[in-house]
Amino acid sequence: MIILSVLYIIAIVAESMTAALAAGRRNMDWVGVCLLGCVTALGGGSVRDIVLDHHPLSWVAHPHYLIITSVAALATIALARIMHRLYHFFLLLDAIGLVVFTIIGCNVALALELPLTVVIISGMLTGCVGGVLRDILCNDIPLLFRSELYASVSIVTGLLYVAGLRLNINHELVMAIALLAGLTLRMLALRFKWNMPTFIYNRDGH
Amino acid sequence: MIILSVLYIIAIVAESMTAALAAGRRNMDWVGVCLLGCVTALGGGSVRDIVLDHHPLSWVAHPHYLIITSVAALATIALARIMHRLYHFFLLLDAIGLVVFTIIGCNVALALELPLTVVIISGMLTGCVGGVLRDILCNDIPLLFRSELYASVSIVTGLLYVAGLRLNINHELVMAIALLAGLTLRMLALRFKWNMPTFIYNRDGH
Amino acid sequence: MIILSVLYIIAIVAESMTAALAAGRRNMDWVGVCLLGCVTALGGGSVRDIVLDHHPLSWVAHPHYLIITSVAALATIALARIMHRLYHFFLLLDAIGLVVFTIIGCNVALALELPLTVVIISGMLTGCVGGVLRDILCNDIPLLFRSELYASVSIVTGLLYVAGLRLNINHELVMAIALLAGLTLRMLALRFKWNMPTFIYNRDGH
Repeated sequence: MIILSVLYIIAIVAESMTAALAAGRRNMDWVGVCLLGCVTALGGGSVRDIVLDHHPLSWVAHPHYLIITSVAALATIALARIMHRLYHFFLLLDAIGLVVFTIIGCNVALALELPLTVVIISGMLTGCVGGVLRDILCNDIPLLFRSELYASVSIVTGLLYVAGLRLNINHELVMAIALLAGLTLRMLALRFKWNMPTFIYNRDGH
Repeated sequence: MIILSVLYIIAIVAESMTAALAAGRRNMDWVGVCLLGCVTALGGGSVRDIVLDHHPLSWVAHPHYLIITSVAALATIALARIMHRLYHFFLLLDAIGLVVFTIIGCNVALALELPLTVVIISGMLTGCVGGVLRDILCNDIPLLFRSELYASVSIVTGLLYVAGLRLNINHELVMAIALLAGLTLRMLALRFKWNMPTFIYNRDGH
Repeated sequence: MIILSVLYIIAIVAESMTAALAAGRRNMDWVGVCLLGCVTALGGGSVRDIVLDHHPLSWVAHPHYLIITSVAALATIALARIMHRLYHFFLLLDAIGLVVFTIIGCNVALALELPLTVVIISGMLTGCVGGVLRDILCNDIPLLFRSELYASVSIVTGLLYVAGLRLNINHELVMAIALLAGLTLRMLALRFKWNMPTFIYNRDGH
């Protein structure tokens, strides 16, 4: 589907630029900015493909993805001065990336005829692991584990998509519904600061 | 072997619950608790399978493992108030997990007819990598590298198991001996605070 | 080529010993020293092989590499007192490791007939990922992202090598040129403290 391909390119550009800003906050050099952009944008799909034995990886088959994400990361350096004005725009792009990656990840697992639980996980790995790798390489506790319904949005998107397909609803309609629902949930979560309840455990407390 | 399957379920439940407590200490949200539980319980076997090209991964073939570890992690939140009373019980379960994972990892490599060194490493990856991933995601230096004979217990268990099989001793007897020896060594190490000697190097010291 | 095999052994020994010193700075135990040495020396090639679906991994096919890197790591403990005198020698060995790993990684991708961009990435993964894993396991922000032209040297070496082969220059001559050029660039970068420009971004700044 051509729309999904276009959204995919938008998504990897957005993820790469967001990662480049994270790199800039840690004063990484230009090569580091570039590498962090590529790992963040393409890492989720790569981990999914490795885990599901789905070769070649997307960037091995289509190396121009590496060029696109590298250019996006380097462009962020040039655009740094105006990036803060684009903050809300990037939150939207990042949310689009999350749901698009999720649908693509579900499609890969569906094509491999894997069980539905694994389809949902495949979507979540594709949507979320890039950000986890970025946080590990920046030496942070991954945000995924702590905030903002990120993984939950991915799971909800995947569940809607899989449920719709199971009910034999038209494929493109299901995809549109899942994308829009996930996107809306993510934007509402950001807008109203929805969070999952946290688990606070103090080993020494009795 | 049915006993090994039962012990495996006990092991992934124990690892997931231990990871959930680590998540609680870092105030992760419920989704993070769940994810950290799954990664810790199933990550060692997954890395082993990826490294040895042994597909599908256990949780891809048996997605109910994901359900079991998720439920175990979430149950930990409900049981948090009484978890400290179960501390010693969990140390025992965790030790059982370590040796059971090790034996299972050795079996995978043996079935692939890999060299004996790789069989030992396969056992160690299965037994130890889940905990390393947990520590990386919690932004700690992995405990594995610093304490408590954890990796050593896995290596000793694997060596005993492989040596016994080589000597053509009855398979189940060898397995029982390796499990018990590894378990005993681990519990003694915890009880008497045995540690490997550490390497202290100060770059600027002469 | 026999010279490349010899250089490879020198490279994994050097990488393992450097990692052992990093382990010693964090007071890891002997098993941790050993594991960190193996992961650092063999991790880059392993990640490359996993990403490119090139099995078996080198240490699975040749388990004596594990013995060599383990012995090198443990020997570092014994030699700790004189290691600081060998500091410059080790910088040279580490630089040799970087360029040798890069060439070997390019060769793996070339044998798989992958696109040239992927060949360069394959070289870079082989040369640099071991050090990234070492830094993650030591809970540091990977040096790769911050300094010393490390990744850049790998990319330049790979580009020269691939360009030379494309021009149908004699294989061994191209390899020698790429190795020497990469090595020279790395040593000059260390000597004159060349760094890539860094990207400094402050989210709250306007």
